[in-house]
Amino acid sequence: MGISKPTLLIDREKVALNIDKMIKTAAEAGCIFRPHFKTHQSKEVGKIFRKKGVKQITVSSVSMAEYFAEDGWNDITIAFPCNILEIDSINNLAKEVELQLMTDSAFTADFLSKNLTSNCGLFIKIDVGYNRSGLKYNTPEIDEIIKLCEYNNNLTFKGFLTHDGRNYSAKGKVEIENNLAEAIEIFKHLKQKYPEAIYSWGDTPSCSLSDDLSFFDELRPGNFVYYDVMQYHIGSCTLDEVSVAAACPVVSINKSRNEIVIYGGAVHLSKEFIAADNSFTLFGYAVKLENNKWTNPINGAYVSRLSQEHGIINMPEAELDNFKPGNIIGILPIHSCLTADLLKNEYFLI
Amino acid sequence: MGISKPTLLIDREKVALNIDKMIKTAAEAGCIFRPHFKTHQSKEVGKIFRKKGVKQITVSSVSMAEYFAEDGWNDITIAFPCNILEIDSINNLAKEVELQLMTDSAFTADFLSKNLTSNCGLFIKIDVGYNRSGLKYNTPEIDEIIKLCEYNNNLTFKGFLTHDGRNYSAKGKVEIENNLAEAIEIFKHLKQKYPEAIYSWGDTPSCSLSDDLSFFDELRPGNFVYYDVMQYHIGSCTLDEVSVAAACPVVSINKSRNEIVIYGGAVHLSKEFIAADNSFTLFGYAVKLENNKWTNPINGAYVSRLSQEHGIINMPEAELDNFKPGNIIGILPIHSCLTADLLKNEYFLI
Repeated sequence: MGISKPTLLIDREKVALNIDKMIKTAAEAGCIFRPHFKTHQSKEVGKIFRKKGVKQITVSSVSMAEYFAEDGWNDITIAFPCNILEIDSINNLAKEVELQLMTDSAFTADFLSKNLTSNCGLFIKIDVGYNRSGLKYNTPEIDEIIKLCEYNNNLTFKGFLTHDGRNYSAKGKVEIENNLAEAIEIFKHLKQKYPEAIYSWGDTPSCSLSDDLSFFDELRPGNFVYYDVMQYHIGSCTLDEVSVAAACPVVSINKSRNEIVIYGGAVHLSKEFIAADNSFTLFGYAVKLENNKWTNPINGAYVSRLSQEHGIINMPEAELDNFKPGNIIGILPIHSCLTADLLKNEYFLI
Repeated sequence: MGISKPTLLIDREKVALNIDKMIKTAAEAGCIFRPHFKTHQSKEVGKIFRKKGVKQITVSSVSMAEYFAEDGWNDITIAFPCNILEIDSINNLAKEVELQLMTDSAFTADFLSKNLTSNCGLFIKIDVGYNRSGLKYNTPEIDEIIKLCEYNNNLTFKGFLTHDGRNYSAKGKVEIENNLAEAIEIFKHLKQKYPEAIYSWGDTPSCSLSDDLSFFDELRPGNFVYYDVMQYHIGSCTLDEVSVAAACPVVSINKSRNEIVIYGGAVHLSKEFIAADNSFTLFGYAVKLENNKWTNPINGAYVSRLSQEHGIINMPEAELDNFKPGNIIGILPIHSCLTADLLKNEYFLI
């Protein structure tokens, strides 16, 4: 492959299958499909979506919106509480593309109403129980924001958007369906009052597992394009559907501890981990690279520790002799969004 | 300041004081001072070292060596197990600068002896108890590597290098002095056999706290230039000596939970945290920015949760009304090496 340092391997075929499946989910639910591009942050991966007919996207920063606008995307929702300090960039972008902003603050909406120079759509973020950002459905501030939009030509109220982050710590489908039912109950109150609004939903676990998303008008999952070990543990995907692996050079082997040291640390994989009760921590599964593909995880082989540039792989004794410095091992990431953010050099497997 | 997105604020004065102090520590110990530049990865910060007479540096990857060589640094140790897949880049670099490599593998040393085209120094990594990489002092492989160097013109054995990572989880000076004493006992065995070798030591906690580092020939601390909340908790520094803060825009305020949402998440601060027993997690202290400086941490204000782009600050009720969207809050990072790696845009306070 000609790889000499930590590199994100992207399996084009798996990416395509993951996208196809989610397009089908959205179609069956009667939803607009507006995938979140924060996971891959890659024009190249964006092109795979485009070839499949996707035209509307979600990002989580103004910078990301600019990056994808450069590549011809022209209908973009920035699903992050609008940062008014970037008003100049927002105004520049809004001249070029159809831009939707998001907020949970009347202060911000008021600022936008006074400072936007081109039209933007506005989503109001609703908190359905994750308690990160968003307004509760019965807060008077919602009406206040919508009124601000009514009196302003450059700010058009679009609808309500939520991200149910609880699903990332859910244990399987039942818990996710319960979260979803709760969220829909909350949204129903809003729908009674604002029947014309767009109801936008998006998280990979529920979009992968739920049986019925037809309440919503729009789906914005992002992680599904790559999936990862965390999604596998939640039950959102099989390990075979994980479409990225970090290719990491072997730099040292410790036979007395059955450990392999790789060039691949916190600045490549991120420090995201899965912890079991017995203080076991998992920073990724180790796979072999063979014939321009990767294998299933090597039984019992996983990244157990990370420092800035080093990763330590626990490797079963029987496998240890198969590796020497200069080999490359693949690591299935715990959280592909963070690993992809760190590994800017991509290598596509065909 | 004109800052509109997450930015690394660097207090030039504090950086200079931190460097001065460590130069003094090295001089008092009679050691070569070869600071590790992996923490800042910044040519601009490198120039502050250079002005103070520093000429020899440590880095942790070939890419970093290339980056600093571009800026005129010409005596560089790559203190990371040599990655033989980068042999071409190593050969190119070694033509231009005095380059020292490191390994704990006779396989790698053999490869280097056959494939280097310019002279490189070689350090052997010794494991003094951290169990990450490195050879035990009594391993026959040490002699094997040194012999390989003796028979080769392009590979010159320089000495022994260690990184006692145990000190990053140490609780204060006593534990660190104990670790140091253990490490010196181990190194004494080697010194008996190889009295001419360079004994190279480096970690910020011990270089900041130990009374006597005179056993060693070279010191390679890195983190001290910035320090961080983790080092403060170990006891290596005061909070006032922390010389970087992540400037993060306020994007949302939740009065019912006493929380502020900032644009500043895992992709800006890293997911490094300090956990207390009661499942309290700390991702950074919040400080106010005033008069081109930052204040001490706001009492009771800290980053309690992070997602990709969001940070959640717990803010005492009495302080909450002082903030609105569009303000900027500073975050003292848990691990400045990782935060600096992520925040490429720097802003120097004078």
